Amino acid sequence: MGNFHTMLDALLEDQEEAVLATIVQVEGSAYRKAGASMLFKKKGRRIGLLSGGCVEEDVFQRISALGDQLTSTLIPYDMRSEDDLSWGMGAGCNGIIHVHAERITQEKRRHYEKVRDCLHSGKAVTSVIKIESSHYLFLTENGHFGNWPDAPLQDIQRTVSTLHLPHFDQTTNMFIQRIEPKPRLILFGAGPDNVPLANLAADTGFSVIVTDWRPAYCTSSLFPKADQLITAFPEQMLSEFQFFPHDAAVVATHHYQHDQTIINFLFSQNLHYIGLLGSANRTKRLLSGKHPPSHFYSPVGLKIGAEGPEEIAVSVVAEIIQTRKRVAVV
Amino acid sequence: MGNFHTMLDALLEDQEEAVLATIVQVEGSAYRKAGASMLFKKKGRRIGLLSGGCVEEDVFQRISALGDQLTSTLIPYDMRSEDDLSWGMGAGCNGIIHVHAERITQEKRRHYEKVRDCLHSGKAVTSVIKIESSHYLFLTENGHFGNWPDAPLQDIQRTVSTLHLPHFDQTTNMFIQRIEPKPRLILFGAGPDNVPLANLAADTGFSVIVTDWRPAYCTSSLFPKADQLITAFPEQMLSEFQFFPHDAAVVATHHYQHDQTIINFLFSQNLHYIGLLGSANRTKRLLSGKHPPSHFYSPVGLKIGAEGPEEIAVSVVAEIIQTRKRVAVV
Repeated sequence: MGNFHTMLDALLEDQEEAVLATIVQVEGSAYRKAGASMLFKKKGRRIGLLSGGCVEEDVFQRISALGDQLTSTLIPYDMRSEDDLSWGMGAGCNGIIHVHAERITQEKRRHYEKVRDCLHSGKAVTSVIKIESSHYLFLTENGHFGNWPDAPLQDIQRTVSTLHLPHFDQTTNMFIQRIEPKPRLILFGAGPDNVPLANLAADTGFSVIVTDWRPAYCTSSLFPKADQLITAFPEQMLSEFQFFPHDAAVVATHHYQHDQTIINFLFSQNLHYIGLLGSANRTKRLLSGKHPPSHFYSPVGLKIGAEGPEEIAVSVVAEIIQTRKRVAVV
Repeated sequence: MGNFHTMLDALLEDQEEAVLATIVQVEGSAYRKAGASMLFKKKGRRIGLLSGGCVEEDVFQRISALGDQLTSTLIPYDMRSEDDLSWGMGAGCNGIIHVHAERITQEKRRHYEKVRDCLHSGKAVTSVIKIESSHYLFLTENGHFGNWPDAPLQDIQRTVSTLHLPHFDQTTNMFIQRIEPKPRLILFGAGPDNVPLANLAADTGFSVIVTDWRPAYCTSSLFPKADQLITAFPEQMLSEFQFFPHDAAVVATHHYQHDQTIINFLFSQNLHYIGLLGSANRTKRLLSGKHPPSHFYSPVGLKIGAEGPEEIAVSVVAEIIQTRKRVAVV
């Protein structure tokens, strides 16, 4: 769902009409999984991808042809035949994908603003759509909102708690999807060696927060892709910052006492990944006998033989992705 | 040596005076290894890093103080003491790094142009410096050039063939380093899903070459970081292109017959990595009974649970780095 947040931002940045296309089901194998979506804005801008370039143009033609008559429709693409040059272009995907296209009404746009607020506060949202109708619902941990009188809430809750999402139920025409908050990377240390990591994490779909006590380092010219820059000493930043369970933190200030302060504090928080830059010996001294939690990674990064800040950035982001996916069973 | 190519480009883009600083030896553990280097240009521009921000400023002060008197000098930094706040800033690196700083003369700049030509033609160059003198030598597979009358060629050759490089010999004051050509990624397929991979590979230090038969896809606006865009059908591109042994290729045209043509051709070439996008079933059919070489990777990318083009890009670049490092024993 990497691009969903980009799409949401693009949808909400103006009042322009827009159509959201989402893969609701894949039979066989396809390049993108159910839940992948793409936004078509009125003036021609497109955000996201549904395939490797095979179906996007046709989806656009169809929604253009429907024009104002489009509310919610399902378009199947059969890419199984290797001889069919129209869709599969010999793509050999051997799969059928079902794409749902829906016009975003002004009302739903306002609801999407509430969705974004939820996500920004670190909460997941479950989206339910009744295809070929104008009914939809968003569920949060505090309740629900949307446009669906007499929604079958019990059935929905049962599906959410027992089945793997996203889930498309062909008998009821319901598509249920879980929208996770954008994963965050909190990067302690704004030294120039951390720039590639901040850039790569942002490019990969993380919301990057950089913090350092040195104003000369913690600048948007050095970290143009960071969503937030916090110039403060570790003690102060840690006492004020609110961590979320899906946060990843990388500690790389190159300052022994600061690293130690940060690590000790993070061990008391509920995060899913804590990485510490430095040699095994340095880490050993820094822990001074403390037993680290199992989500502590040091030396940081997958062991791929990375050298230099750019390659190390790849190894770290790869490790964070792997860790997220491993515990993202829910 | 990720940044060496960036530094070389920065050095040769004008005639501005410049000082090259290189770590020639590390005792204990440090953030960057021997061979890491940094370029200081006269007008203040700095390219590369020697540490996590600990020593760069001091190196700059020293070379500024020396001014025109600098030819070649060795500066040791002892970062072992956790109490010493001047260098280690409590960095706890527990290591000593020896930094060599040398003014690049006009003559050496011209020799560096020859070095760059060698690298561009896919050949490695070995650099030899006699520290605290003006002597240096570049060795290629065809001979050598530089400024070193009566250079001890036999000793150098023996070191190159038996020891792990980079190597610093304290008795002779020689530093020997191997400069590899920039690794290349040849990306078959210019679909929008390949953009994140091209960008990330370029950011990580690869020279990226993108090829596709569709002029609408193969554009520098889609692939701004590609060094080369080749718009041609696979057969034509393959018949004209010269592959190097350190090349990595990723095949992702989403077109079954084209992918098959490309894969079959690449199997006959000497590359170090061939990745193919697509499901195991599709790959099976595409190989049609052919046994792939052991440097063939499909499904492409490290198994980190990557989803979406951005995460897949991370998994692929991580896999290529790992493969390069594994066979880069020489």
